[in-house]
Amino acid sequence: MPSNHQVRLAARPSGLPKASDWSMTEEPVPTPGAGEFVVEISHISLDPAMRGWMNAGASYIDPVEIGDVMRAGAVGRVVASEHPGFAVGEHVYGAFGVQEYALSDGSGVVKVDPSLAPLPTYLGTLGMTGMTAYFGLFDVGKLREGDTVVVSGAAGAVGSVVGQMAKIKNARVIGIAGGAEKCGWIVEELGFDAAIDYKTQDVRVALREAAPDGVDVYFDNVGGEILDAVLTRLARGARIVICGAVSQYNATEGVRGPANYLALLVARASMTGMVVFDYAPRFAQAAAEIAGWMREGKLISREDIVDGGVSAFPDALLKLFAGENVGKLVLRVG
Amino acid sequence: MPSNHQVRLAARPSGLPKASDWSMTEEPVPTPGAGEFVVEISHISLDPAMRGWMNAGASYIDPVEIGDVMRAGAVGRVVASEHPGFAVGEHVYGAFGVQEYALSDGSGVVKVDPSLAPLPTYLGTLGMTGMTAYFGLFDVGKLREGDTVVVSGAAGAVGSVVGQMAKIKNARVIGIAGGAEKCGWIVEELGFDAAIDYKTQDVRVALREAAPDGVDVYFDNVGGEILDAVLTRLARGARIVICGAVSQYNATEGVRGPANYLALLVARASMTGMVVFDYAPRFAQAAAEIAGWMREGKLISREDIVDGGVSAFPDALLKLFAGENVGKLVLRVG
Repeated sequence: MPSNHQVRLAARPSGLPKASDWSMTEEPVPTPGAGEFVVEISHISLDPAMRGWMNAGASYIDPVEIGDVMRAGAVGRVVASEHPGFAVGEHVYGAFGVQEYALSDGSGVVKVDPSLAPLPTYLGTLGMTGMTAYFGLFDVGKLREGDTVVVSGAAGAVGSVVGQMAKIKNARVIGIAGGAEKCGWIVEELGFDAAIDYKTQDVRVALREAAPDGVDVYFDNVGGEILDAVLTRLARGARIVICGAVSQYNATEGVRGPANYLALLVARASMTGMVVFDYAPRFAQAAAEIAGWMREGKLISREDIVDGGVSAFPDALLKLFAGENVGKLVLRVG
Repeated sequence: MPSNHQVRLAARPSGLPKASDWSMTEEPVPTPGAGEFVVEISHISLDPAMRGWMNAGASYIDPVEIGDVMRAGAVGRVVASEHPGFAVGEHVYGAFGVQEYALSDGSGVVKVDPSLAPLPTYLGTLGMTGMTAYFGLFDVGKLREGDTVVVSGAAGAVGSVVGQMAKIKNARVIGIAGGAEKCGWIVEELGFDAAIDYKTQDVRVALREAAPDGVDVYFDNVGGEILDAVLTRLARGARIVICGAVSQYNATEGVRGPANYLALLVARASMTGMVVFDYAPRFAQAAAEIAGWMREGKLISREDIVDGGVSAFPDALLKLFAGENVGKLVLRVG
């Protein structure tokens, strides 16, 4: 009989999560009660936001409690069901956690169609990643025709999609990423107008050249020094979308605030935080539009898939903070 | 024959402006050419923003050049005119500078009526101060019925007007100010719902009590620690108006960025910079509305008037950074 391997939060990390912050557990595969079903998970989403969920205290979502299975979005197949809405064999997305099997009552679960796109894409471009890019760029960033858009973490899951969406809307797009491989990919494969390699270039100087008229929309995934550099290059009325701050999530000596924030005043600019869950009522419409762009070849979805099952989760998560992934980082299970 | 005493910028200050950063000059009173007029200045506006104008480099306005008469808003009376639009005896407001007489071609000059309000009020509540409060609160802050509003520098020129305008619109208003006198004034005389004395109270703790449901609009005049404290208490969808950062203007080791800026994400909040000049086409309409509130006794205008003429300017300016003024700080000339 198969068992259910799980990754649970054992301790709240200080700085980068280490092995002792996790515990590996094994349980029997659950049996569904009335109104429940069991999902055999095939792919688990790895997200920088997970680091925030591991901290105590109020945020936009409750923290994962010590001893709980680590929260994660995942896709899989229904293998047992006592739920009238979910049949064995159907594929689903939900917050199933870092484990091999999940018991669900259907809350927050959506069906996905593996004949339209590979399952990992439902964690990325057709999933929360794509939704974050779409609503961040269009709703929060209020992208306008002719805008100059800068995105950080540009070769990452969200950043790579933001840049492509901005190109679809005829913006000029500059991506900030680390290393020649990523910078080459976003320009040559994804069609960004320019890339800035923050590991070898002075972002402020490079932006002056790449965005001579200033930045209209900055989609920030990283925070820290890069946010401060972009603040010096804002166009009048610029919109900064605060999506995340991966450079700061593991800071042990406090978050670095943007010292150049008074540039908001000079530029009459705004900095606005977003949480993708707020847009849930419009996810289906956005996913349909994104799927259309993918079919037309205007938007490339790339997943960076890690093997090794749930036990590989702790190491895989660290790849995000080391900037090792290109595209959406996904853990394959089983 | 009278002469024109002037205060000029002699050096760019590091930190607080000191005596040697200024030079005092004396010139003949100018004679108007065709299309010009001369104003005898009676009152000069003292503003925290002046500190920024003294720095080199691009901002929302050109810096004052070394050797130039210090830029300042002022009111006075036309004493000689070769301009068809301005007659001797009329009272005017303009960027006349820190001097006793100004030559003008009428650019940016507006007539004021001393029979409707005392001249210093046209530098404060009916002038740029009132305009900043009005457009910052209503346009940038998007004040809504029932909002909880927090304003820093609450006993200062802009802050004291912001809070009263928010009360007129039935908001709950909390002012942050330094010292018992200021805190007493804003509650007892101006009708704020609560005051927090940042010199003796922990702003974060005090806000938890004064704004248990969070802050909907934060009008920030000070930056620094107080901005960081308010960021921890934002309500969902909060709007932060970045009007100024008087705590940071004289920083010699770099501006302190708001370390808690990721609260914008948690609260889906925004932080937006403003420059009052952008609203010039609507100044007349706003001034008429503000004058109405003053007539009805709903809005009190207080000016803190310093005597001593233009030579008192360097010391008077420092009162702003020491937090010594209550209401609008104005220098009386002559």
